Amino acid sequence: MLRVMRVVKVSLGERSYSILIGNGLLSGLGGGCDKLQLGRRCAIISDRNVAPRFGKAAAQSLAKAGFEPLSITVRAGEAAKALDTVQSCYNQLAKHRLERKSFIVALGGGVVGDLAGFVAATYLRGIAFVQVPTTLLAQVDSSVGGKVGVNLKQGKNLVGAFHQPRLVLCDLDTLRTLPEREYRAGMAEVIKYGLIYDASLFEELERALPGLLRRDAATLLEVVARCCEIKAEIVSKDETESGLRSILNFGHTVGHAIEAISGYGKYLHGEAIAIGQVAAAKLSAALLGLPSEQVTRIEGLFSKANLPTRIRLTSAQKTRLVASMQLDKKVSAGEITFVLATRIGQAVWGQKVPRKFLDGVLAPSPAAPRRSAV
Amino acid sequence: MLRVMRVVKVSLGERSYSILIGNGLLSGLGGGCDKLQLGRRCAIISDRNVAPRFGKAAAQSLAKAGFEPLSITVRAGEAAKALDTVQSCYNQLAKHRLERKSFIVALGGGVVGDLAGFVAATYLRGIAFVQVPTTLLAQVDSSVGGKVGVNLKQGKNLVGAFHQPRLVLCDLDTLRTLPEREYRAGMAEVIKYGLIYDASLFEELERALPGLLRRDAATLLEVVARCCEIKAEIVSKDETESGLRSILNFGHTVGHAIEAISGYGKYLHGEAIAIGQVAAAKLSAALLGLPSEQVTRIEGLFSKANLPTRIRLTSAQKTRLVASMQLDKKVSAGEITFVLATRIGQAVWGQKVPRKFLDGVLAPSPAAPRRSAV
Repeated sequence: MLRVMRVVKVSLGERSYSILIGNGLLSGLGGGCDKLQLGRRCAIISDRNVAPRFGKAAAQSLAKAGFEPLSITVRAGEAAKALDTVQSCYNQLAKHRLERKSFIVALGGGVVGDLAGFVAATYLRGIAFVQVPTTLLAQVDSSVGGKVGVNLKQGKNLVGAFHQPRLVLCDLDTLRTLPEREYRAGMAEVIKYGLIYDASLFEELERALPGLLRRDAATLLEVVARCCEIKAEIVSKDETESGLRSILNFGHTVGHAIEAISGYGKYLHGEAIAIGQVAAAKLSAALLGLPSEQVTRIEGLFSKANLPTRIRLTSAQKTRLVASMQLDKKVSAGEITFVLATRIGQAVWGQKVPRKFLDGVLAPSPAAPRRSAV
Repeated sequence: MLRVMRVVKVSLGERSYSILIGNGLLSGLGGGCDKLQLGRRCAIISDRNVAPRFGKAAAQSLAKAGFEPLSITVRAGEAAKALDTVQSCYNQLAKHRLERKSFIVALGGGVVGDLAGFVAATYLRGIAFVQVPTTLLAQVDSSVGGKVGVNLKQGKNLVGAFHQPRLVLCDLDTLRTLPEREYRAGMAEVIKYGLIYDASLFEELERALPGLLRRDAATLLEVVARCCEIKAEIVSKDETESGLRSILNFGHTVGHAIEAISGYGKYLHGEAIAIGQVAAAKLSAALLGLPSEQVTRIEGLFSKANLPTRIRLTSAQKTRLVASMQLDKKVSAGEITFVLATRIGQAVWGQKVPRKFLDGVLAPSPAAPRRSAV
């Protein structure tokens, strides 16, 4: 087993923290927490898929380091990112008498991280939390940067906070048992980093994708670490998304709307934003002159990762999709704004997109493979 | 009508804001918000008691300044400070399509301010809010400082955030119609400022209480402004309560527990903390040598304000009270800590209190007036 560890620092003054990336890190969870000067009592929030696989190892590591962990298991899937789950977590924390110095460990994918982070952000007006992401998507994206929250039925992540973790521990071993579909969904965020910020990463992915899809350990380590570096750099420059950080939402305006109108569940987040990123690339071509051969490379890379790139919508579904976009957090003065790309490796935010262009990219071309409608 | 306005500044870097105190300020709400560079859309959160009295004036002032206010009315009383009300507010904000630049106006007492502030802190990961406190308690205490939150059935304010308002507008005219019992409850927080921070204010209250209880305009203006100054000074020095700010919790450990075990409703917050402050004064005498004649003056001032100073508990109730204190946010490593006074005008925080002393002060003395048990 590979025993190389990479450390990425997120620089945010007194809220700075480290992301550790490597194999076999879960057994060091207790030791990692021990350095943070927290209280003894803590809670591990996980879901029904992840808890049976890694819950025991996490709890044992914490107990060995002298902590008293409570295990909270929520249902699996996006539906858990809701206020009723938050309420149920609060009740268990109160029953277990967590204090201001206590902390929460989020053990799972993006849903668990966002949910547990929001619980930590609001319980006793905010307690510490540690991210232990166990999916590719969570390791490269959602576990870093402090965006936490839950969904409303009206839209994704409409309720939340900025609450930075104290430590992020990416154990690449946890990806071994990740279902193929979820692993591929995570690849959509990996590709995004190349597309919006790092042309050489994009090119590297074009070359190294087969190895990555095989989950080759050395490739994974390099790619996950590079993604975390990019995210850390962007978040350090703009923690609360007043500008630059918005580029991380590339593909998310359409993507979130697809998730919302399909009731959170039909598409995984990564799948929805793969479609969204291809749509954003086409808008970028139409509005900002992104070269068409780059659009082709972008769509090609998502396809090679076996991710959906288009969606077939009836005109009624399209209307609902646009209505849902208008609820997006990025809407300003009623206008939907997009993150677009000027070239592979460079994105710009706050771009207004006239409705007719949107209609254009959402209409599947005749050559599009027929994918089931929402 | 008196037309003098006082301005108190809360200095918190880029989160600084002003507290305006005076008569007839409500009609200037729209103009005040106009200076904050916010979006047009906003929501006024109020309750069934306050909305009929001041809701229309607030909405008209906002509309006149070009804003589009949505009115949200929640049920009156502490029971509204709960997650189901938060959820209902979120739904209405989403339906009204509030955006990141939109804002919330909290129009009401402490319950409305804490609730609306928590909604603002978490909706779209935080939007702006303006406090328009309409009770004495909210004007001198809860509207200033950014502590927002809701209760769990296990305890008060167990869920919340620090989210500073952008403006606090204390219209003293709104106090004219305040029910006598609520007005007196607010006096408990007024007395607290003298007790913990300002001996001359305490002495002034001993002299000026009759005028204050008559709601004399000039006295009210001076006293409310002085309380806001003290709170602003303390909050500016310690926004997130890592030390000094704790002294504002004088009387609250016992007070919150009284509220919790009586199911939030029997005692108003101010009544519960009047009892709590007298208990804390007695503990201060026993543990820190607060002179007994000062304890007498303290108990006397609360009595003159017609506030309860003692509670009669069965031994079962006392056990529940102590259990509830252990859930308090101020508990550290399982130990209940108190804010105590060394003399009138000076408080210290983080004081450990052995259980036997607690039992001592909670036992009503033979001379105590018989007040109904919890």
